[in-house]
Amino acid sequence: MKVQKVNLAAKLSSFQDPWSPKIVGDLNDHQVKLVRLKGEFVWHKHDGEDEMFLVIGGRFTMRFRDGDVALEPGEMLIVPKGVEHLPVADEEALVVLIEPASTLNTGDAVDARTVRDLDRI
Amino acid sequence: MKVQKVNLAAKLSSFQDPWSPKIVGDLNDHQVKLVRLKGEFVWHKHDGEDEMFLVIGGRFTMRFRDGDVALEPGEMLIVPKGVEHLPVADEEALVVLIEPASTLNTGDAVDARTVRDLDRI
Repeated sequence: MKVQKVNLAAKLSSFQDPWSPKIVGDLNDHQVKLVRLKGEFVWHKHDGEDEMFLVIGGRFTMRFRDGDVALEPGEMLIVPKGVEHLPVADEEALVVLIEPASTLNTGDAVDARTVRDLDRI
Repeated sequence: MKVQKVNLAAKLSSFQDPWSPKIVGDLNDHQVKLVRLKGEFVWHKHDGEDEMFLVIGGRFTMRFRDGDVALEPGEMLIVPKGVEHLPVADEEALVVLIEPASTLNTGDAVDARTVRDLDRI
């Protein structure tokens, strides 16, 4: 099969549910996902996995136990493995998320927002 | 050390040399790099590594043996391991590149443009 490009805006327009990452690509043992952030998530960490957030629309704040980092379009952040974090988006943020395929969205804080078997779009 | 965000435009403004990826982040066994593409590179492949290209400025074409894919800002492409490819940028393209730390820019086609010991910016 021919290699296909992904238009991020087009893919984002195909879903509206926040905090529910969708897979748009496989990169070795990692997955590339798109996610809409809206409101406050849950404090969690990923013991074995670094997690990359790249903002492509809107803005959000990543809260850490030692301070906040505000992120705008064109900015990225890598949350190192084991570090507790809490994404908060007062307005909606559109984010490219890259992390190992094994990563669970809520990390060690499994709750009603935990998503398993992510959709591919 | 506190987690730092990366502003991609600010990092890109710190270098001008094309085809010379700079490391801006470590993501598990992968690295996040920024690169400027200008002109035609060299046909090559990475036998063991998928490689992700995300365009954040300008445009370029990825040539494959079975056709071309034209990429604009907000579009991404994952070149699967083992697939020959040739990036061509008639105008300059600004690209986020994500690939295993082991990946050499020219893959199996080591030449004068091969860059080892990439700078961190």
